[in-house]
Amino acid sequence: MLDNEPTPVDDRPLDLPAISRRHLLMGSAGALASVSLLGFSPLARGQAPATLPEFAAWKSLNDLIVHSANTMETRRDAIGSGVLTPSDKLFVRNNLPAPDASIAADRDAWSVNIDGVNNPRALTIAELKTMGVETVASVLQCSGNGRAFFPHGAGGTQWSVGAAGCVLWTGVPLKTVVNALGGVADGMNYITSTGGEELPAGLDPKTIQVERSIPLAALDRAMLVWELNDNPLPVTHGGPLRMVIPGYYGVNNVKYVNNVAFTPAQTDTKIQVSSYRVRDIGVKGSADQPSMWEMNVKSWVTSPLETASRGRTMIYGVAFGGSQAVASIDVSLDGGQNWQAARFLGPDLGQFAWRPFVLAADLAPGEYRVVSRATDSQGNSQPENRIDNERGYGHNGWKDHGITLKVT
Amino acid sequence: MLDNEPTPVDDRPLDLPAISRRHLLMGSAGALASVSLLGFSPLARGQAPATLPEFAAWKSLNDLIVHSANTMETRRDAIGSGVLTPSDKLFVRNNLPAPDASIAADRDAWSVNIDGVNNPRALTIAELKTMGVETVASVLQCSGNGRAFFPHGAGGTQWSVGAAGCVLWTGVPLKTVVNALGGVADGMNYITSTGGEELPAGLDPKTIQVERSIPLAALDRAMLVWELNDNPLPVTHGGPLRMVIPGYYGVNNVKYVNNVAFTPAQTDTKIQVSSYRVRDIGVKGSADQPSMWEMNVKSWVTSPLETASRGRTMIYGVAFGGSQAVASIDVSLDGGQNWQAARFLGPDLGQFAWRPFVLAADLAPGEYRVVSRATDSQGNSQPENRIDNERGYGHNGWKDHGITLKVT
Repeated sequence: MLDNEPTPVDDRPLDLPAISRRHLLMGSAGALASVSLLGFSPLARGQAPATLPEFAAWKSLNDLIVHSANTMETRRDAIGSGVLTPSDKLFVRNNLPAPDASIAADRDAWSVNIDGVNNPRALTIAELKTMGVETVASVLQCSGNGRAFFPHGAGGTQWSVGAAGCVLWTGVPLKTVVNALGGVADGMNYITSTGGEELPAGLDPKTIQVERSIPLAALDRAMLVWELNDNPLPVTHGGPLRMVIPGYYGVNNVKYVNNVAFTPAQTDTKIQVSSYRVRDIGVKGSADQPSMWEMNVKSWVTSPLETASRGRTMIYGVAFGGSQAVASIDVSLDGGQNWQAARFLGPDLGQFAWRPFVLAADLAPGEYRVVSRATDSQGNSQPENRIDNERGYGHNGWKDHGITLKVT
Repeated sequence: MLDNEPTPVDDRPLDLPAISRRHLLMGSAGALASVSLLGFSPLARGQAPATLPEFAAWKSLNDLIVHSANTMETRRDAIGSGVLTPSDKLFVRNNLPAPDASIAADRDAWSVNIDGVNNPRALTIAELKTMGVETVASVLQCSGNGRAFFPHGAGGTQWSVGAAGCVLWTGVPLKTVVNALGGVADGMNYITSTGGEELPAGLDPKTIQVERSIPLAALDRAMLVWELNDNPLPVTHGGPLRMVIPGYYGVNNVKYVNNVAFTPAQTDTKIQVSSYRVRDIGVKGSADQPSMWEMNVKSWVTSPLETASRGRTMIYGVAFGGSQAVASIDVSLDGGQNWQAARFLGPDLGQFAWRPFVLAADLAPGEYRVVSRATDSQGNSQPENRIDNERGYGHNGWKDHGITLKVT
């Protein structure tokens, strides 16, 4: 299984220029350097991961596939049928090595600069906490979730289904902050957030900095978040403060956020201009291609995954609408020839959350190709096939996400 | 604070007959015996609890007030503002010492007998799991939550606010099971559930067995539950299998359930007939008094609890409707003279869940009496005062649940 084949290096959205060996060790391939610095051991193929990197050592190793020091996905069989993903099972994907844990020593003192508003200023978390608070359940998902299913060998971490989870975010709506600062300045079209990772010396910051722009329309849902699942946001996941845009792919949810600017144009960082762009295989990334912003409708089965005993079997999975609420879910036991409506399970946590689903199936011995197909509140259903693209982004085709079940 | 005054013995719903010392050690005061057997150390007043009993050793000691070997409540300042209570913070209250952990060695093999239906039979958890599944969020609350606020010294564990939590239960609706067994037999009026605790020898089982009857109408919400917060139900909380009646007080949610009978009359166990009965102070319990079945509307502040700095302060708490959904929540900063509507926080997990609430208050230096008053979907609001009763049950008066906040 691809799941058991960790890639030896971090998923790099940035096509690095030729750099010296010293830069390689210091630079955006810091993940490589951190392999030893963080006590993480690269693995031979098929080996079970033995350790977690130090900055994620609190995670549940048994529930994770450790692809690299900066990329860990939740095992498909650990996703379960819960409405929420426990923090210690949540996937990890950092574009740059995480800052030292010491940045969370005084969380309330963390400061974020708000620019492109009528009264720009810096605000500490302590100040943000008095301005407003909301808790939203939403799916966090990497743009490359499902990349392992692309046959052309899309570069980057070979995520299967587990670069996604549904969690609770608590923070202040960005709109509340903006209103308190006199509103968005005229002529602004984007929300541009900057991550506070320390940048390696000697490289053009524009080529490595995690700074992302999203359309201003997302102001209705953007949040500055200090809690994950009702606990202080771990540094592993962007604490003390993270920009969270429910319904948008993970990369837009900028970690360690220290600057939020309303801007007329998108930022000219590499991660915005040419990375996370959907284009045909073999084509280079550029700003005229679609950016990985809003997520699409998606689902997959989580149990059983390989075998079951004859008779009544409960088939579980998760489904979400991405940027819209998920409305319904169908399951097929014969690879998509016949479909049955499955049932959502548990409380509905809102537009941006996933919903576990269940289908009771009476199975005779044999082999079944089990696939699921979700439909969102706008009537969009998962397509049958992936849309092939250079980097393997946004895969929500139901066919590739199916599993083959042997019933004995 | 009463919170810090653990009672030296377990909360006993059963008025034990005079028994020998041997029986005392073996019998329903087994909690006392278990004080040493379980490695739990009774505490002097004011001492911080040092250890958890073995059957609850996985709990978060820092978040709990350990009243006795069988009774632990969540600290008020640990309740927080989350929509769910993590399992390791959830209060513990067992009427009898918990069975050995070995009863969960083969969870799927646990068997429950279903009687008083047209086709009575025993079912294993493995079988129940194929019959149906649902996940419901509901408040679990001890009948005596708030007992510490009764000035007459009601006997039993001196719970403050923390004998309550909101959790996810996963299991099969009892109605689904009953329908599969031909429906409820004619003439039945109650659902009677029996706990599988081992009973001490030499005592009349009727005086100690945890067997509770609830009205048949609760069949619409009763569940046979095998998961708590998406994990196998811990033995500490009644696993492998527990009867859960969302909206009903804790005692009706029979742990280690091994028999569910539809019956014409209520069971004649002491825990049903004379315990958990609401009566005037000094009156003995009897079957003509109200039983602790459906919960009432309730709320309390969780933060801040003692001091705050002048200026904008966010006041947090939790509110629930009990057997109905909670509809609104008001907060007063002057002991109930003036009220302001507070705002619910986070996703609504349904009729039986609690909702965290928040109120932004601009506070000048001084002392504030902060109280909260919830209203359910039927228009029932918390009363100002407690209804005094012998055992200190069902306290939802808003006055006693307030806190005094010093703002400097």
